Amino acid sequence: MHNSPFAVVAKAGDTIGDLSTPRPIIDEDRLAANIARTQAYMDKHGLNFRPHIKTHKIPALAAQQVAAGAKGINCQKITEAEVFAAAGFEDILITFNIIGAEKLARLAALNECISGLKVVADSTVTVDGLSGYFATRKPLAVLVECDTGGGRCGVQTPEQATALAKRIDLAPGLTFAGLLNYPKPGAAAEVQAFLTETLSLLNIEGIGCPIVSNGGSPSLFEAHLVPAATEHRAGTYIYNDRSMVRAGHCGENDCAMHVLATVVSRPTADRAVIDAGSKALTSDLLGFTDYGQVVGYPMAVITGLSEEHGVIDLSKCEGKRPEIGDKIRIIPNHTCVVSNLFDTMVFHRDGVVTRVEDVAARGLVW
Amino acid sequence: MHNSPFAVVAKAGDTIGDLSTPRPIIDEDRLAANIARTQAYMDKHGLNFRPHIKTHKIPALAAQQVAAGAKGINCQKITEAEVFAAAGFEDILITFNIIGAEKLARLAALNECISGLKVVADSTVTVDGLSGYFATRKPLAVLVECDTGGGRCGVQTPEQATALAKRIDLAPGLTFAGLLNYPKPGAAAEVQAFLTETLSLLNIEGIGCPIVSNGGSPSLFEAHLVPAATEHRAGTYIYNDRSMVRAGHCGENDCAMHVLATVVSRPTADRAVIDAGSKALTSDLLGFTDYGQVVGYPMAVITGLSEEHGVIDLSKCEGKRPEIGDKIRIIPNHTCVVSNLFDTMVFHRDGVVTRVEDVAARGLVW
Repeated sequence: MHNSPFAVVAKAGDTIGDLSTPRPIIDEDRLAANIARTQAYMDKHGLNFRPHIKTHKIPALAAQQVAAGAKGINCQKITEAEVFAAAGFEDILITFNIIGAEKLARLAALNECISGLKVVADSTVTVDGLSGYFATRKPLAVLVECDTGGGRCGVQTPEQATALAKRIDLAPGLTFAGLLNYPKPGAAAEVQAFLTETLSLLNIEGIGCPIVSNGGSPSLFEAHLVPAATEHRAGTYIYNDRSMVRAGHCGENDCAMHVLATVVSRPTADRAVIDAGSKALTSDLLGFTDYGQVVGYPMAVITGLSEEHGVIDLSKCEGKRPEIGDKIRIIPNHTCVVSNLFDTMVFHRDGVVTRVEDVAARGLVW
Repeated sequence: MHNSPFAVVAKAGDTIGDLSTPRPIIDEDRLAANIARTQAYMDKHGLNFRPHIKTHKIPALAAQQVAAGAKGINCQKITEAEVFAAAGFEDILITFNIIGAEKLARLAALNECISGLKVVADSTVTVDGLSGYFATRKPLAVLVECDTGGGRCGVQTPEQATALAKRIDLAPGLTFAGLLNYPKPGAAAEVQAFLTETLSLLNIEGIGCPIVSNGGSPSLFEAHLVPAATEHRAGTYIYNDRSMVRAGHCGENDCAMHVLATVVSRPTADRAVIDAGSKALTSDLLGFTDYGQVVGYPMAVITGLSEEHGVIDLSKCEGKRPEIGDKIRIIPNHTCVVSNLFDTMVFHRDGVVTRVEDVAARGLVW
């Protein structure tokens, strides 16, 4: 973290309302409730749960998730995994095709440090690259990434998945660890069909499949509709956000992250300008047409963001309108990208700061 | 900056093609040419030039801008100004309404450190807040922010501007330093009319107006159409980006920032997936419907971003298509928000790293 010559760092006991804005704040009780609720759902359905740490990037929060019962953690890049390995986590799945000499060297160093490192592959290029590097080293566990409708990475058919699993199984330096997918929501039946067909083909080939990892926050509470899966991965649930509310996964009162902002201008009766712009809220829309929900002002619309300003249309607000100097709270559209903008995260209970955590894995290049 | 236990930092002499991706890189020669070209335009028209450092947040780059002839610098928040003051800059304009006890204390400390600190105000609340704090301290220079059509902050009429200037002029602890606006592009005539009318009203009141600060990259090369202005502010021009190309301010070859990315998956013939997502490119669209321009593949469309993946539609590409492992370069839609995601920035000449600079003012809360 950079040091400002006059930097003011929040500390335990401070009052949230006195903090300089803009600044995301996390409600400890909602955070704990979100962790407990999702873990209880997974436990009820006998699914291992692997939280994705990209949402918070804070080892202390992953420790809370593991203490609640999570089986391991999910990272999206090597540098994230390095930070969490250094913090003592052993069961780390990196859901990415790792390619290139520089990344392979660091992946191998990481694999020497922890017992449960796993990565994914969806092509022979990735598998052959991994095998070429790991053939003379401690073997690496590799899952086959399957595209079950998400439209991002992944092999396209159970036959391709099986062929790639076989290639991994035979590849020097690699062990086949299972299947993984990142589905579109509402597609549990498709996912189940893809996975069971692949498992059947693997069985015919005599290839064991220890892990079947299903994932995603949008499909979080459909996880039990995919019985072929052994585990589920999700990240956003720990903080929750406006997109999770819209998806019906939680209510506004379950959103643990608020972005605290100050009204700095009221140029017209219908316009408020706040000090939270795209460098605090991000431009992520996730299907919304505005940039967050203002708590307590349900008809206020954040119509536009510049980098350090947000423009709010108050024309539909009935009753009170926020005035210059008022501090307001915003539920962001997407919490994971907000985390990524701040070097530290402030936690509170009933408006009193409980702790300040470094967002330890933020801003690390791959 | 956080330390990864296995962090690899680029150094002078490294080859750009060997760097781990995703990673923005800056072409030194384009950077220097962009600085020289804009300064030459301002010099030709007798305008003082005040670069906005939000684009790069790197003192060494502001030093290049000042060496080329810039009159001072523009910051958007106190913490940015603190970093640049510590680096030796004296003439710093913070284009923001500073509100709240914590920020006022830091603003006063900053004002003691440098000779040319200036801020803006667009309301009596802001002015009275500043005056209440600075009445017993070294006086603070304050400009009146005017909304000349930009639709963000600013007083709405020349009469309001004059009344607020008068209030500043009479306020203990404050000195009236001038007028400031952030216009919408193509509105030079409106801006000129607003400013000249206000100057005329100020003249009647006997209030001198040392600075008339016009601004914005979108209206950069219209600056000479506002002769009432004494200075212009702009930031993006130093790197340039896709939005500047679309606006006709520069060509693709003038874009000094490229985001280097690696193709990590080719799930189908028409789909490529890269390792640059919204945590590298940001979700800023700025009116585009896709997330950046792929250099050398003019028909490739970055249709979607998740946090660490970008999905590219290759269906319209004729001829070669990028393959797994290929490194590609992307001209981002908006360079200022990309800078804000990375703790360090790598510079190169002809593909060889020349220097690595800390993005020193990144990630600082207000």
